[in-house]
This record gives sequence, structure tokens and C-alpha cells, in this order.
Amino acid sequence: MGDFKLYGNCESGHSYKVKLAMEVARVPHEYEEVDLRLDRADRPEPFRSLARYGEVPLLVHDGQAYVQSNAILLHLAEHLKAYGGETQARLERAREWLFWEANRIGFSMAHLRYGQKFDPAAYAGTVLPWFRKRFDADVERLEAELADGRAFLLDDRVSVADFSICGYMYWPEQANVHYPVRLQAWLDRIAALPGWRHPYRMEGAQPW
Amino acid sequence: MGDFKLYGNCESGHSYKVKLAMEVARVPHEYEEVDLRLDRADRPEPFRSLARYGEVPLLVHDGQAYVQSNAILLHLAEHLKAYGGETQARLERAREWLFWEANRIGFSMAHLRYGQKFDPAAYAGTVLPWFRKRFDADVERLEAELADGRAFLLDDRVSVADFSICGYMYWPEQANVHYPVRLQAWLDRIAALPGWRHPYRMEGAQPW
Repeated sequence: MGDFKLYGNCESGHSYKVKLAMEVARVPHEYEEVDLRLDRADRPEPFRSLARYGEVPLLVHDGQAYVQSNAILLHLAEHLKAYGGETQARLERAREWLFWEANRIGFSMAHLRYGQKFDPAAYAGTVLPWFRKRFDADVERLEAELADGRAFLLDDRVSVADFSICGYMYWPEQANVHYPVRLQAWLDRIAALPGWRHPYRMEGAQPW
Repeated sequence: MGDFKLYGNCESGHSYKVKLAMEVARVPHEYEEVDLRLDRADRPEPFRSLARYGEVPLLVHDGQAYVQSNAILLHLAEHLKAYGGETQARLERAREWLFWEANRIGFSMAHLRYGQKFDPAAYAGTVLPWFRKRFDADVERLEAELADGRAFLLDDRVSVADFSICGYMYWPEQANVHYPVRLQAWLDRIAALPGWRHPYRMEGAQPW
């Protein structure tokens, strides 16, 4: 299995998606919560040097540092040969979803939340409505995807596509959004997996 | 090598990055320009059915359809065992850049351009300044990355990380941006590669 240490923060959905995958996959690992309220230059070593840009999540696996949440998820899927990493074909489908997430729902949802909860001034004027429109389109696509009744995004087995896309979605009240019925049922199915916890209830969580 | 057909459009930097990689890698392929001014439902078959959401680029390789530009780049790198696909370690480093691109420079640059050239009304008010601020931070990061004098983003060999990140960057005048010196030199090095052409001079290009 190897030696794993994850650095994260419970206010980061990018961090949460990796923590969630590791919990559901029962990958033994050390976890360290990094205080993101510190300037990047003040964040503790060895985190700061290993995470070149000082961002969470950072996964250290057998001495090698991995950054970018979705890249870490792919690394885990390949290493575990599970959650999308079972075959090259399944991995390629999961990968398409991860890139979709990176500039669609993981972006729109993250900014809707951040702009309302943490930094309204930066999102004033027409910025927040722009993100809400994008979010609405993203949700519409996900709802249409799930229309055929499959349990998870790739098929009936949970994969890194699900972990990635749900990363920011368990804070609907902070983003001030509502989900349509199939999307909510999919989130509920993920939340019913052994190992699932809300980001604020994960190991080491210190919500602001 | 296999049988390749690429569907794209010369106004899409997402499409361009795949076309550019295939040209530089000298991958023989058929190319079809898709008119993005048509509604998705009106785009021609078999493109519309194969690209589930009607978006470019779509790569069909030995009968299998691949979507999402960065996922396609990874597929090519793995298939060619080149441009980042030489080893698993190099692929993982390239992958981190591709995910960075998907919600950083490939996003900020794409929207700065789109919002000024194609749809100013949708980007009115504070939206365009929001993207400009994000773009400035992205450029600062890239400029710092290139400070050690290496030729390309991973090392001295061009990779899919370079192809991906330059996708929207040969339209500075359309986005109304300027690049700092190292970033410009890196773009010039890519533009000097055999097979490089400006997006508007690629095969089948029909600029609007």
C-alpha cells in the first residue's frame, strides 16, 4: 500500500475530495490540518516546501509529493486499481469527469460559496450572478446525466469522478443553492458510503 | 499508431491545444472543423452523438470517442509514450499542470478573450475585472516557474503541459493582454517547434 501522509484543510472542498476518497477506500494515512488563514510563506514545514505553491491538498506517498486534488485522485485510483482505476478504459472516463469538474461544478460551486461566505467584496457586482448562472448550467448537466437511473457518475460503482464532483457540494447552505432531486439522491448515496463524513467532521477538522 | 479523427474549431483554444499536439507529434489524422455557431442540437452527425455534449474537441481513436481537451492530451501522451507520457513519473507531473490549467490560465485567458471578443454583455460590470485579476495571478505564477531558465514547463522537453497551457495564449490582442518576458519567450519556443501554426492557420480553419 505504501506510506501516505495527507495535508489538508476542512474548509477546502479540494482537500475534502481527497480525504473522502482515502476514507472510503480505507487507505491508512496520517493527516495534518494546515491553517489556510496563515500566509503561504508562514505555513509550516515540510508542507510549505513540498507543496510548491503552498496549497492544500498535498499528498506525500512513499516520499513523493503530489499536488492538485484531481491529479491526486487519479494517482490514488491508479495505485489502488479501484474507484476508476480498475482498467484503462474506466480511468479514461473518470478523467474526463475530473477535467469537467475542474472548470465547471468544482469551480462554480467553490466560488459561489467562497464569494458569499468568505469574501463578498471580491464577488460584488455581477460576479456572483455570473457564477450562479454557470452553476445552474452545471447542475442541469449533472441532473441530465443521472436521468438513466445509474447510482454513480460512471456507472453503479462509486469512482473518483463522484468524489471529485461532490467536493464542494455538502455546503449548499453556505453557497445558498438547492439541488434537484436526482442530484440530491446521488449526494445522499455518496453520504451513505462507509467512511463518508461531512467535511467539518473529518479527522482534524477545525472549521472557521 | 491507430486511426485518428479529430473534430475541432479554430476559435476554440481547447480544440487548438489538441490539434497542436497532434501536429507537433506528427500523428496522422483526419480533421473536421465543426461550426460552433450552430446550436448543439444542429451540429452534424456523427459528431453530435459521439461528443455527448456537442463540444469540441472530440477525438475518435480506433472507434473510441474521447472528450475534454486535457483528457485527450493525456490519452495521446500515454499512447505515444511521449510529450509527458514517457514514464509514469513524468505523466504525473504533466497531469498536475493540466489540472492547474483547467481552472487557472486556460480558464482566465479563455474568458478574458471570450468576454471581450464574443459576448461583452455577459461579462459586463465586475466580471471582466475579476477574470483579469485571476489572469494576472496566473501569469505571475508561470513567469516565476520559468525563472530557472528551463525551456518548457516540465523540463527542457516540450510536453502536453505546454500544449495545454498555451491553448488560448496566441490571441493576446483578442484578450487585450500582454505577457512578461519569460512567458513570451516560452510561447516563442513553442511557436518555433516544427508543426506549430497559429490557430487561425491550422488545417480547416475558418475564423469568424
